[in-house]
Amino acid sequence: MARIDDISDYLIAPDPSAPRLTRAVTGTDQNGQPIHLRVVEERPLTIYLNAQEIVTAMTIGDYPEYLALGFLRNQGMLRKDEVIKGVDYDEELDVVVVRTNGQTTYEDKLKKKTRTSGCAVGTVFGDMMDGLEGIALPPTQVKTSDLYALAAKINRTPSLYLEAGAIHGTILCQGDHPLVYMEDVGRHNAVDKIAGWMLSEGVSPDDKILYTTGRLTSEMVIKTAMMGLPVLASRSGFTAWGVEIANQIGLTLIGRMKGQRFVCLAGESRLIRDADPTQVADEPRKVGRKGGA
Amino acid sequence: MARIDDISDYLIAPDPSAPRLTRAVTGTDQNGQPIHLRVVEERPLTIYLNAQEIVTAMTIGDYPEYLALGFLRNQGMLRKDEVIKGVDYDEELDVVVVRTNGQTTYEDKLKKKTRTSGCAVGTVFGDMMDGLEGIALPPTQVKTSDLYALAAKINRTPSLYLEAGAIHGTILCQGDHPLVYMEDVGRHNAVDKIAGWMLSEGVSPDDKILYTTGRLTSEMVIKTAMMGLPVLASRSGFTAWGVEIANQIGLTLIGRMKGQRFVCLAGESRLIRDADPTQVADEPRKVGRKGGA
Repeated sequence: MARIDDISDYLIAPDPSAPRLTRAVTGTDQNGQPIHLRVVEERPLTIYLNAQEIVTAMTIGDYPEYLALGFLRNQGMLRKDEVIKGVDYDEELDVVVVRTNGQTTYEDKLKKKTRTSGCAVGTVFGDMMDGLEGIALPPTQVKTSDLYALAAKINRTPSLYLEAGAIHGTILCQGDHPLVYMEDVGRHNAVDKIAGWMLSEGVSPDDKILYTTGRLTSEMVIKTAMMGLPVLASRSGFTAWGVEIANQIGLTLIGRMKGQRFVCLAGESRLIRDADPTQVADEPRKVGRKGGA
Repeated sequence: MARIDDISDYLIAPDPSAPRLTRAVTGTDQNGQPIHLRVVEERPLTIYLNAQEIVTAMTIGDYPEYLALGFLRNQGMLRKDEVIKGVDYDEELDVVVVRTNGQTTYEDKLKKKTRTSGCAVGTVFGDMMDGLEGIALPPTQVKTSDLYALAAKINRTPSLYLEAGAIHGTILCQGDHPLVYMEDVGRHNAVDKIAGWMLSEGVSPDDKILYTTGRLTSEMVIKTAMMGLPVLASRSGFTAWGVEIANQIGLTLIGRMKGQRFVCLAGESRLIRDADPTQVADEPRKVGRKGGA
């Protein structure tokens, strides 16, 4: 499958040649012969909200400011009306500090949390569910012809995935245009970087679609809704809770999108079925993307 | 690709027909026709160590006791010599309590952590790296013929992945026998369930291999080493830090294992190359597994 050369649709496209994002390693192949390949980097990034250390995330390391902003926003730690005074990234320390105007409520939440749920890995899930209260997603319609066009463009876009593998992609789209294509070792980081970009640029989610290479889990659905995006599409599959939440909050959820096939498990009413699936090419074997059904 | 019928090699095999692990959902396909499918469940499980609430993990929900034990062990919260008094699972509350003899040191660690890194998502990475100190992995050798046989058996084993998709698998193996095959919505949960089973049964890691469907990230490599397992293999790709840590601690790391192909990026000295790769069948298109390069 030919890669597309024209990436002018994108406001931000992947930069698979960036030396900081991959590392050359050597090993042996199945015949015991030396093999040289590039693998993606993975480095810690510690995120502060004002004076409060919040988390250390493992990330590929591009767009740390967007990752920090988007993470805090998607966790409900930054309110929509919060004034951001600055976002400072220290490359040597692998630290990002997001500074807001005045005290955030998160310090109180944190104290409460240390009493109730301890500090460990996992998701601040309660907080995320809280953030969904009062969210009303716009009734924007989406053409199936646009969905097919997006999938075809995204799968052929030069990316770190095609270069080095072992990475997830998330793409913010409008109509049949992919706008911002973020990749990361953690699929949630890729989504958070999109959220941070939208927050920085003041971009409206109302007429946008989110496309992800990852699975449609509860956390993915919640993040998409927190960002105000009405449609989430993926070539991968679903979890039951992801489907349930999407139905509860009225998000259009499309998965298993490969070639002409897809499944819509929530928010069917937004779909305008203007494409004839039989006219859509099946994917050739070497599409280069994970089959995620 | 035919699924195997004989799963007698396994001590624990997936149970794709278990009603509690999948849910029937309905939606529409690309032609607007109703479609009925099964998707994997995803439910919260809160893990306590004695009186201390540690984490709420999103899990498919099978083997909660193994998940809790393995999680605490892999996070370095249970020492090797710790006496486990009991593991109690409350299905209604979605809670597991692991009880140990006497006070664990983790409560102190937790207090320290609340001061230094706050409570949020991500990994207690410092603790995990600490746990690697003094680990010496056994020099066990592994035949490439066994690796090929394992991959072929595992890919054909009836599983939730083949039934419903959107799930990761991790398999503990010995020689060419897959022994324990765990699946979960989070790939780290699948590994932790293996660790919990090994801890419960007192199983030696010295002559075992871990096979995973997920990527070979730093966290995956660290968990494998924490479990004392000398070899980690996957059909997916690598991250740079995963490779670096594997080389530092002397773990054999094999990735991109599909059909006759594989890449070894660390611990080459354990490999006995007794198989002729050209005699290994290439994977048919419908292998049903993610291509993870």
